[in-house]
Amino acid sequence: MDERKPRILLSNDDGISAPGLKALWQEIQGLGDVVVVAPDSEKSAVGHAITLSDPLRVWNFERNDRFFGYAVNGTPADCVKIAYWALLKEKPDLVISGINQGSNSGINAIYSGTVSAATEGTILRIPSFAISLTTFTDPDFTYAAKFARKLAAVILANGLPQGTLLNVNVPPVPEAEIAGVQITRQGQSAYLEHFDRRVDPANRVYYWLTGKKIDVEENLAVDDFAITKNMVSVTPLHHDLTNYDYLPQLESWGLTP
Amino acid sequence: MDERKPRILLSNDDGISAPGLKALWQEIQGLGDVVVVAPDSEKSAVGHAITLSDPLRVWNFERNDRFFGYAVNGTPADCVKIAYWALLKEKPDLVISGINQGSNSGINAIYSGTVSAATEGTILRIPSFAISLTTFTDPDFTYAAKFARKLAAVILANGLPQGTLLNVNVPPVPEAEIAGVQITRQGQSAYLEHFDRRVDPANRVYYWLTGKKIDVEENLAVDDFAITKNMVSVTPLHHDLTNYDYLPQLESWGLTP
Repeated sequence: MDERKPRILLSNDDGISAPGLKALWQEIQGLGDVVVVAPDSEKSAVGHAITLSDPLRVWNFERNDRFFGYAVNGTPADCVKIAYWALLKEKPDLVISGINQGSNSGINAIYSGTVSAATEGTILRIPSFAISLTTFTDPDFTYAAKFARKLAAVILANGLPQGTLLNVNVPPVPEAEIAGVQITRQGQSAYLEHFDRRVDPANRVYYWLTGKKIDVEENLAVDDFAITKNMVSVTPLHHDLTNYDYLPQLESWGLTP
Repeated sequence: MDERKPRILLSNDDGISAPGLKALWQEIQGLGDVVVVAPDSEKSAVGHAITLSDPLRVWNFERNDRFFGYAVNGTPADCVKIAYWALLKEKPDLVISGINQGSNSGINAIYSGTVSAATEGTILRIPSFAISLTTFTDPDFTYAAKFARKLAAVILANGLPQGTLLNVNVPPVPEAEIAGVQITRQGQSAYLEHFDRRVDPANRVYYWLTGKKIDVEENLAVDDFAITKNMVSVTPLHHDLTNYDYLPQLESWGLTP
């Protein structure tokens, strides 16, 4: 029987100095051998970007004069790739990305660097999950970190199907107010967006994106809604983007060269 | 009956000066009122990134002393968003992204800025497709542009289901050698990757990512394989990433707070 400790890779998109990553790292320590490989600066909303046209550099990053992890001048997906292919002596058993500051539920999962690190883990055939605390204001990561540890232990025991990651969103309330854990699907609510048009001191126009989700489906089986009811949402995502249901109809178009 | 011309938005990830976009623009002219909104420089492998932490700027871009389109200092998804919410007077009927230089089949669809512009169109509930020519060497976009026009006309006639885009990959052969059009699913072949470790003139280490697809499934119903047989692959993708098949098993884990 294999008695070795599980190897756990942590990454994020808020950057290696982010408090959410530190909280996750503190809680996960006890579960196995933990390695941190994370972006050297904040990389939110980078989607599933990878760096092809520039060299990547890696630094040792310290906390309290002790080695904490590797900082990379790349995206979350770059971090998982370079950890797997170049930095780690042995392949990880689990990838955890987070704890992100801000929600990655619903359509946000598509833009999320946090989710992309877990997706990259899954592409490399490692069980992976992303975890986010759904607030930008005064984040307290205590409960989210505790839940991450619990979920990590379950995944290490149960595994995940190849190509499937979990996307976890935790409401920003004390543990006593958490209403439960809800298995959810990804919300498809649209964003009502606005580009704020401004003029800079040199009289040049620039735009700044703002937006809010509208028409959130009022269904506990939807991640966006479950978190409004103080439920932890756990959504299984996969990276096979094919819309299988639509294949027959597309065949019927009779496209020819 | 609405006799107005269809409004068609073009974008890409190779940048507004890329020859593939010009070839697409020339061919699509005849189909309707065409507007180009594209990144001011190459944005390959940016995934579904959006720019939140920096202002976006927009320039008029000319070709042969005539207005060609709007150049944006952002990602492909930014371009479609800012076109929709700020630049265009009326909403487009169709978004086309491309013609990309290089394949976006299989797992590449996840990293692709070209695909992300079409995904963004779909999020905004506009029928959308991405089109790529599967070569980096001496690209001849003639046939791919012709196919784009044909497909655009079919989509304008048939529509696409909400949330579904088409991802088209065209083999780099003359029209006479095109073997057909194949409706496909997204290949799931892994990449064998390598970070080339180098030392710069200042004696600092850097890494450069290289990789190749391995174990491509030999099945014409898979995009990666169809294009090797000189078939045009047309894959319906959607942005609901939920793995519905796995929901029941995840429920059985009995996760609690």
